[in-house]
Amino acid sequence: MRHDEAQGAGTIFADFVAGTSWTDVAAQSREAKRSILNFFATALGSAHDPAVSAALRVLAPFSGAATSAVIGRPERLDAMGAAFINAISANLLDFDDTHLDTIIHPAAPVAAPVLALAEARGFSGRDVLVAFILGVEIECRVGNAVSPGHYARGWHITSTCGVFGAAAACAKLLGLPADQISNALGIAASQSAGIVENLPSAAKNVSVGNAARNGLFAALLAAEGYSASSRAIEGPLGWSRAMGDEPNLARLTGGLGQGWEIAKNTYKPYPAGIVFHAVIDACFKLRAKLSQRIDQIESVTVQGSALLLARGDRVVRNERDARVSIHHCAACALLLGAAGVVEFTDATVFRPDIVSLREKVRAQLDASLPDGAARVNIQLTSGEMLSEIVMAAKGSLADPLSDRDIEAKLRDGARLGGTNWDIDRIIDDVWRLDTLAGVSSLLRPHG
Amino acid sequence: MRHDEAQGAGTIFADFVAGTSWTDVAAQSREAKRSILNFFATALGSAHDPAVSAALRVLAPFSGAATSAVIGRPERLDAMGAAFINAISANLLDFDDTHLDTIIHPAAPVAAPVLALAEARGFSGRDVLVAFILGVEIECRVGNAVSPGHYARGWHITSTCGVFGAAAACAKLLGLPADQISNALGIAASQSAGIVENLPSAAKNVSVGNAARNGLFAALLAAEGYSASSRAIEGPLGWSRAMGDEPNLARLTGGLGQGWEIAKNTYKPYPAGIVFHAVIDACFKLRAKLSQRIDQIESVTVQGSALLLARGDRVVRNERDARVSIHHCAACALLLGAAGVVEFTDATVFRPDIVSLREKVRAQLDASLPDGAARVNIQLTSGEMLSEIVMAAKGSLADPLSDRDIEAKLRDGARLGGTNWDIDRIIDDVWRLDTLAGVSSLLRPHG
Repeated sequence: MRHDEAQGAGTIFADFVAGTSWTDVAAQSREAKRSILNFFATALGSAHDPAVSAALRVLAPFSGAATSAVIGRPERLDAMGAAFINAISANLLDFDDTHLDTIIHPAAPVAAPVLALAEARGFSGRDVLVAFILGVEIECRVGNAVSPGHYARGWHITSTCGVFGAAAACAKLLGLPADQISNALGIAASQSAGIVENLPSAAKNVSVGNAARNGLFAALLAAEGYSASSRAIEGPLGWSRAMGDEPNLARLTGGLGQGWEIAKNTYKPYPAGIVFHAVIDACFKLRAKLSQRIDQIESVTVQGSALLLARGDRVVRNERDARVSIHHCAACALLLGAAGVVEFTDATVFRPDIVSLREKVRAQLDASLPDGAARVNIQLTSGEMLSEIVMAAKGSLADPLSDRDIEAKLRDGARLGGTNWDIDRIIDDVWRLDTLAGVSSLLRPHG
Repeated sequence: MRHDEAQGAGTIFADFVAGTSWTDVAAQSREAKRSILNFFATALGSAHDPAVSAALRVLAPFSGAATSAVIGRPERLDAMGAAFINAISANLLDFDDTHLDTIIHPAAPVAAPVLALAEARGFSGRDVLVAFILGVEIECRVGNAVSPGHYARGWHITSTCGVFGAAAACAKLLGLPADQISNALGIAASQSAGIVENLPSAAKNVSVGNAARNGLFAALLAAEGYSASSRAIEGPLGWSRAMGDEPNLARLTGGLGQGWEIAKNTYKPYPAGIVFHAVIDACFKLRAKLSQRIDQIESVTVQGSALLLARGDRVVRNERDARVSIHHCAACALLLGAAGVVEFTDATVFRPDIVSLREKVRAQLDASLPDGAARVNIQLTSGEMLSEIVMAAKGSLADPLSDRDIEAKLRDGARLGGTNWDIDRIIDDVWRLDTLAGVSSLLRPHG
């Protein structure tokens, strides 16, 4: 697939998406299935969150024929509404997957519309996998082309880039020809939105949900003949420059098909900021060494790079603070031996023993440690010192979650989210997704 | 209404919107009615455009209960869908109103959701006027705070700022308390999108429609408890800075209620770029002087500021080119004595006599002329020279369209758009909108 340099990125992407079939991506399908399992884990876990219920109350009167499932709940909506809600629940706690180069959470904006559309129109599991892999590819490449400036400037990159992935994936699923895929991507550029200033609020969910819904909308409009600039992403008055970055064209469209962004996807074992995961792992190791001597801890010193410390000194007033608190992560891991969804709820945040242990934790810069690593030193009242260092946290590319870990995360999510969906069937169906004639069994509330 | 300097713009706007009632805005209601008449003129004129029909085909299967009219057509949709479609048709030809300080087209993103919501929920004509005036106020103030850099950078300002106006107007119409109005504005910030690179394509319509639809969505979400940052517009990682501008806080929230942006609204007599209007007016005057001597024209020289020339030298290949062509505007005005919707269709663009006259037109910089002015000089084969200068085009603030002009524009729009809606009733209803118990008579296809 050779390209004229004068071609717009929309054309280049569209030719690639249109020209890619199952045999080209089959080798990526295991990681795609892991991503989709992890997507179900977090969507089921937050299915009954008040933010999901409120969005559902708003959208229900604005739904056409209810073709598509709301994951983990009995309600159904049209495919655009279901895409919106399922992207919200999957991303709500930022416990979904992470593309480390960009900090995009790739699956929520792409899997949500792909599954909703596939259920509505009867596309096969293999169609879903091809569309999902391509959507994640486009989404993360667009993010690569503007990182790290884009997020730093205030753009919520999962939302702003997610809409491109959703558009590409839905256009592929609909079987659109290349020119219409290019138009879908260009229409996505005119719908890309979401700001970091709103991240501590429910407004964050709106931009994530819109990425999913509007990506599908872009593909549907393109299928009806709506056009867009083939340079909507990188043109002189296009998305990237308006957003504030000269686009890195090599990272945008270079080497398409030679490597796959989904291969760089990671899954969190803990619903905390990803930089805190090494702290948690180090504390788990220390907990084993401490045995029953938790009450003999005099001080805990957490050492790491500037990235770790940048978000680590916040007061812990609520669940959101807890998920980006070195102090809370260390206290839970040491005292409770756990750092799951429950450990970041208010019930744990305000436990007296957790509050007390949090106060013994200090954060300290160690510029020699790479981002993502942490050293934790414990001084006991006896004078004894214990220390552990973790260079690659569990869930990182170097120490990925196993398939069984992800299944366990899904079971935990389903239990905590209070759903009655059949988890064994979901797990079984996702692993054999490439053989399924449709996705309806995967998206059904009951047996 | 005094404000702590530490308050976010969202809070300041929300207090203002919540605290404003009919008596505060009654003096603005005539201009609001003119804006709404002009909105109907352009929405009716483009009601059957292929881009409107295509969007309707996409949205129809995704509509809930059809509470709201699609202007100029028999179809009905839910309020979010109708808001989307009616904003598209009103803005399609950029023939809608213009706020000259920002080049925002204010009415389309605000009137569309306000009317759709009012029809769905039974709000009164007075409620509609108050909401519309406040929506335009917020929309244009947000635009003022980031102009002129915002548009120049590639943001389609009608779309990006329209969503704030739609959110404010719908939140007011729903009677939300101040804290929820602030949340609606913050949610709007996470939905603001639309790029200039896409303006020559149908994707432009998508961001305009979304501004209307998503502003309503923001208000509905806020009413269900969705929150947002009160500094979503101007905060360190908020909308303005992410978009590329330090926000001008004085222009954003200074002097609220002391003057009104709607008072600066203007209405186009011609569906051409607004800088070309003085060229057309000058050529109309010259046509009267020429009498029957059109075929004696040897050359036409159009003089104006750099702004006029910046967009004036484009080749004329289609309708979009024609609307931003000095040459085409001059040729139509001189030869046909008209510059309405018909004069910018392909049928006129490719008329041999128009093509021939266009080729005799030259554009020339006269830096002494202000933006918006034009001088046109004609040399006849006899050697005689004719010249006219227009400093303030018809439709500008200095020479505004009369109420009768706007009514005539509405009648023309309805005729050209092929609608069978009752135009006399629309005109009558808009002029007495503040006395109407509801808007349904205004939004009904038949007698």
